[in-house]
Amino acid sequence: MSETLIFSENGVCFPKGFRCAAIGCGIKNPDVKRLDLALIYSKCPTVSAAAFTQSSVRAACVDFSASNLEKAEPRAIIANSGNANACTGPAGIRDVRTTARILAKELGILQREIQVCSTGIIGMEMPMDRIESNIPELVKKLERYDGGVAEAIMTSDTKPKSVAVEFEIDGTPVRIGAVAKGAGMINPNMATMLCFVTTDAAISKAEIEAATAIAVEHSFNRITIDGDTSTNDSVIVMSNGRAGNREIRKRGKGSLIFRKALNEVMLRLAKKMVADGERVTKLVEVHVRGAKSRKDAEKVARAVANSSLVKCSWNGEDPNWGRVIHAVGYSGAHICKEAIDIYFGGLIACENGMTAKKTPLAELIKVVKEDEFTIGIDLNMGNGEFNIYTADFSPEYVEFNRAEYAAAKMAK
Amino acid sequence: MSETLIFSENGVCFPKGFRCAAIGCGIKNPDVKRLDLALIYSKCPTVSAAAFTQSSVRAACVDFSASNLEKAEPRAIIANSGNANACTGPAGIRDVRTTARILAKELGILQREIQVCSTGIIGMEMPMDRIESNIPELVKKLERYDGGVAEAIMTSDTKPKSVAVEFEIDGTPVRIGAVAKGAGMINPNMATMLCFVTTDAAISKAEIEAATAIAVEHSFNRITIDGDTSTNDSVIVMSNGRAGNREIRKRGKGSLIFRKALNEVMLRLAKKMVADGERVTKLVEVHVRGAKSRKDAEKVARAVANSSLVKCSWNGEDPNWGRVIHAVGYSGAHICKEAIDIYFGGLIACENGMTAKKTPLAELIKVVKEDEFTIGIDLNMGNGEFNIYTADFSPEYVEFNRAEYAAAKMAK
Repeated sequence: MSETLIFSENGVCFPKGFRCAAIGCGIKNPDVKRLDLALIYSKCPTVSAAAFTQSSVRAACVDFSASNLEKAEPRAIIANSGNANACTGPAGIRDVRTTARILAKELGILQREIQVCSTGIIGMEMPMDRIESNIPELVKKLERYDGGVAEAIMTSDTKPKSVAVEFEIDGTPVRIGAVAKGAGMINPNMATMLCFVTTDAAISKAEIEAATAIAVEHSFNRITIDGDTSTNDSVIVMSNGRAGNREIRKRGKGSLIFRKALNEVMLRLAKKMVADGERVTKLVEVHVRGAKSRKDAEKVARAVANSSLVKCSWNGEDPNWGRVIHAVGYSGAHICKEAIDIYFGGLIACENGMTAKKTPLAELIKVVKEDEFTIGIDLNMGNGEFNIYTADFSPEYVEFNRAEYAAAKMAK
Repeated sequence: MSETLIFSENGVCFPKGFRCAAIGCGIKNPDVKRLDLALIYSKCPTVSAAAFTQSSVRAACVDFSASNLEKAEPRAIIANSGNANACTGPAGIRDVRTTARILAKELGILQREIQVCSTGIIGMEMPMDRIESNIPELVKKLERYDGGVAEAIMTSDTKPKSVAVEFEIDGTPVRIGAVAKGAGMINPNMATMLCFVTTDAAISKAEIEAATAIAVEHSFNRITIDGDTSTNDSVIVMSNGRAGNREIRKRGKGSLIFRKALNEVMLRLAKKMVADGERVTKLVEVHVRGAKSRKDAEKVARAVANSSLVKCSWNGEDPNWGRVIHAVGYSGAHICKEAIDIYFGGLIACENGMTAKKTPLAELIKVVKEDEFTIGIDLNMGNGEFNIYTADFSPEYVEFNRAEYAAAKMAK
């Protein structure tokens, strides 16, 4: 079996049997018709899995989609940007149902086969007139090529994000395609992010659920920009079996490469999200090892990755291990302060809890001047390990977030 | 019994029997002699209590002082700014011992009767030559008036902070005086902050310990600026009984007013710290009520008070309840999203999880334009309540923290 994964920037129409469309209907801005409504459709039935926000304040569409997924396998995802349909009360529930009803009729499928996703301003009712009237046109536009889905789901993202991969299972080519939006509040538990994945793999329900859970855990749940989570985060993975491979069963033949491919697709999108975070200049991996447990390693990694002071120092290209060890100290993990080593891009900056005199400061500064680098933390206590991707904190981030939505009022 | 508390800006020499001194010995900057070494001394034996940082990376001086307090009641506190003596390994332990040895000799007291505190750069050895040679002069300068102690412990603080209070117990006047330094990383568990309290009250060990723990819990543990904690935080309370009141026993006569006075002293200093936080423009109280439990209320308050996006919106004077409800959502507390009410300065902004249409936006904007305001969050689930003081997040904060210590290298 070939282990080769061939990546491309293709999107959700790369796998067989999927169609998509995008349209601008004035949800973001009634005056400027930017793409803001997208549709992904599978011609045949799917086997699907999803992960939704862990926030207790979920948007109406997330409640609706999660409930639908329990009842039926989705055939279509409709997603809009500009309005999150969150904190909208009974009107929000009515609106998501209206959207699904109209779309189901146009596509000739059941309402429960529809996933509805929204991202944008919260606390304001959906401009349903614009959505209702545009759904028929959106369905008419369905085509075999990515018709701007990645753009249509963008909010404060500066770049559309898509990744696709092709590989073989027993000589049969299988494809995975994905689009995502992030920016802003990207956090441990998947903040303001949407990711739609399509695949033509034939795969069992148990395996796609397991593969999705693992991939989310190692990608979107390992990124953080500002520590906030969103009401609307959703990752939806649809497979339609059109590749014609022998069905991948849970941990069965083909499972290994499928999981590897799905992991890599989501990880690449997750990294793109961090790098495209609001006013971000650095992509930083925080890698903790030597912790007493994996849980302790995670505590340390998240404390460092979410420390405002650490993130400010990166923005200033200051190899400040003092702030890193602070965050290690208050993380709540079991540590021995005299055993802590801290590395910047492989160079030891702090050894046994003290300045590592052997590394010249100039060398450490070179590391933090890079656009991407790794902070390694070895607690020298055990075998617990965890890594997370994060970004710096810039004056422009605050500038952006203090002003961005003042006009729009409530947004995320 | 009179319940009157008379506050003033006096410091630690306000109560009877305390002496203090401050000196500039070039720890902050060898070239500019700013005050950076302070001494507080009680002529008679004390009954004392303290609270130290909960960080696992404690500075050498904190380890030393905490250990001393288990062995003896302190007679003196020596504190320097400019160098935190943290992450300094065996040299740090040696240096703190040397300081105590020299000071004990000069004062004619035991080493174990000394508390040593430091704040400033971490990871660099103490400039002991400058400290050692200046201790005799510092002791000579001891006087009955606050000789600049509040200034000598400042790091990035812009203002010295002191509060004193006088009240009566059974007709006997009792005094409490206090100085503190904060700024920067003020966080839930007392970050980079020092607070020294003196009182001439006659009080039992059990009562001063209880009163100190309660006051710290309701003041320094209820403030947050950027969520980071420090290696060096210390609150030390010394009482010398010189007021001549009948000894205050645990929950006995006089306990109520003493605790009230101590709480208020610490709360006033805590608020001064937040308001003087690095590049802070707003002092905000987050008050959560109606939670299922006090713990849930605290989770919500801390999530909101530490949310970068919420803090950015305050800086932009944007009454953005959407970001507040986000933070409520991911706080981990039990909530019902349809039951959440959010108030800005008493005006309802979000009712039952939705925009409260009855409050004009212009009125909400007026609230966030104030220098101080309260965010009220009612979960409508139970009786759990918690409040915390926090601040906004400014572009200047990031600007300051990205650059401030680049030259000094490792600091807090």
